[in-house]
Amino acid sequence: MKCLLLLVVLVIFQMSNLANAQKPSDTKSIDAIRAVLEAQRVAWNRGDVDGYMDGYDRSEATVFISGDSVRHGWQTVRDHYKKSYDTREKMGELTFSDLEFTMLSKDHVSVVGRWALKRSNDAPHGRFTLIFKKTKQGWRIIHDHTS
Amino acid sequence: MKCLLLLVVLVIFQMSNLANAQKPSDTKSIDAIRAVLEAQRVAWNRGDVDGYMDGYDRSEATVFISGDSVRHGWQTVRDHYKKSYDTREKMGELTFSDLEFTMLSKDHVSVVGRWALKRSNDAPHGRFTLIFKKTKQGWRIIHDHTS
Repeated sequence: MKCLLLLVVLVIFQMSNLANAQKPSDTKSIDAIRAVLEAQRVAWNRGDVDGYMDGYDRSEATVFISGDSVRHGWQTVRDHYKKSYDTREKMGELTFSDLEFTMLSKDHVSVVGRWALKRSNDAPHGRFTLIFKKTKQGWRIIHDHTS
Repeated sequence: MKCLLLLVVLVIFQMSNLANAQKPSDTKSIDAIRAVLEAQRVAWNRGDVDGYMDGYDRSEATVFISGDSVRHGWQTVRDHYKKSYDTREKMGELTFSDLEFTMLSKDHVSVVGRWALKRSNDAPHGRFTLIFKKTKQGWRIIHDHTS
């Protein structure tokens, strides 16, 4: 009888693990990712590229793709941003919109969205695909493809 | 004693499940994805857009992003390709290169690569991010961002 009880408990434990693997707390994850994006937007709009870069995973594996170029590694991505946006004017005012979230697994989420910069002389805009990973530091971007 | 044995067996079963979740057969998955990409390339180069489209998941959730536009759904993506590449000449000869694979989970893999078309009058090229998902039909693209 004890054996049966133990078996039932362990099977329930096993099933709950499988359920967790397939149905994570999506809303909580998406809220956390929204908060990272919002912190990036706010950092950008105060001219703080390094604050903006906190949204990216500080890893050699972090990848940034735009046009026909691929940049590997957090530091390379940061240096590219610092060089391309070296004045407050070039940075302009950033907004994100039309965000779509897809849970790929309990610790990977893809995000599609629209970015736009409002600047004194122009208003560039486009789309991005981000892959967020749940790291020890929280949800961070490991992959950014911007067009 | 029987109880202890049952416990040990179930704990081992549980651990093997966790191990499978963290260390899938990466090489096998990547080989299968390479085969899908190769089938797409071959289909394209015989002027077969529908054969090329077999690489994409036949789902409403399939998404294709290029420039500043997002297209949702396999059929929409297929119609866009059919319209944009309505002659053999426009299709040209497709090659993929510089492929990089990242296992996001046991059933999701991101692929970065370079695409190029050789045509009589020009040679457009760029980069793509693909997210492949392991479906019942095999590995299929659920997300394509091309620039």
